[in-house]
Amino acid sequence: MHTSFDPSLPPPTIREEDCPFCAIAAAHPPFDPIDPPHPFPSPPSAPTSYVVLSTPALIAFLDILPLSHGHLLLCTRAHRPKLTDVTGPEARDLGGCIRLLSAALVRATGIADWNVVQNNGAAAAQVVPHMHYHLIPRPEIRASGRYRESFTMFGRGQREELDEDEAEQLAEELRQQIADILREEQEDGESFLNKPPKQKL
Amino acid sequence: MHTSFDPSLPPPTIREEDCPFCAIAAAHPPFDPIDPPHPFPSPPSAPTSYVVLSTPALIAFLDILPLSHGHLLLCTRAHRPKLTDVTGPEARDLGGCIRLLSAALVRATGIADWNVVQNNGAAAAQVVPHMHYHLIPRPEIRASGRYRESFTMFGRGQREELDEDEAEQLAEELRQQIADILREEQEDGESFLNKPPKQKL
Repeated sequence: MHTSFDPSLPPPTIREEDCPFCAIAAAHPPFDPIDPPHPFPSPPSAPTSYVVLSTPALIAFLDILPLSHGHLLLCTRAHRPKLTDVTGPEARDLGGCIRLLSAALVRATGIADWNVVQNNGAAAAQVVPHMHYHLIPRPEIRASGRYRESFTMFGRGQREELDEDEAEQLAEELRQQIADILREEQEDGESFLNKPPKQKL
Repeated sequence: MHTSFDPSLPPPTIREEDCPFCAIAAAHPPFDPIDPPHPFPSPPSAPTSYVVLSTPALIAFLDILPLSHGHLLLCTRAHRPKLTDVTGPEARDLGGCIRLLSAALVRATGIADWNVVQNNGAAAAQVVPHMHYHLIPRPEIRASGRYRESFTMFGRGQREELDEDEAEQLAEELRQQIADILREEQEDGESFLNKPPKQKL
């Protein structure tokens, strides 16, 4: 069951049928992350998107206006305006996937530092009102002339459109790294996504 | 079992025994979030801290240099330098708790917009090398003279020290809201923390 915490909050500023993230989710059915499709299908009706993970509950894809190489978005498959609108199980899945995607991102980009950001509401700079986590690699300051120490997390000023070929290659690499990590963790007895926690409250 | 994803990464820049978040965790044993202690104990040996949630795996407390009223930190009880160092179950617990704390924060502060931020590594502006999520309420621009549209997420420039009385009152309110939400969700059949996900991959 899905409940919003505060019924007095204003409704989302976009209808579900106009939501770009819902359109991406609708065009990409879930696939087994440990055995991703290869070559990866590109649905003709979908908005341009480079999907790296698609489960019954969640979907992750490259940001088309990246703040850095590898900038990823992770959202619920269902339309949830804010983090308080997601179900408990979705929230737990999101937590597990952020770890998985972080590890895959470090391996795929070679960048060991990154930010995880999730914005709720206009005052917090949320642009698409379908809740999503950003994962943003942060190259060392010295390695990137474009890096500013007090960078602006939000706004589109310094964002450049994604290059198509580069994006396809990066998405393929990320799907591969995700599969590798899941395979290694199976062997280790670890789990990212679908095991209950070891300890209860 | 705990494994780091990339053994070639540099070691954390702080030893576990010097870590302020480990000290806070050590001073605050887990309590039942649905029935928090009242009055809340203040361990004499601990660093100043206002704890709102303490489970076997996680601990959440007020940031002592808040970017806004209600600025919360959520971290693992165990010392994990980056998000890729946490276990799968910890990552899932973190995901569930971010939702719970977000809901409690909206209720306690009356502020419906907020950011969730988690920084990994110096280039990503991580200051304390014990992984933690920030939850930062964002009052409407018009309601706060201090708000800047392109605010700096990181750095300490505009941060003011927490007022002790205000902090104690806010922490008490947050513990109460957390308990209320957990009680409501029990009735609803929802779960924040300790149920397996509804669907598997």
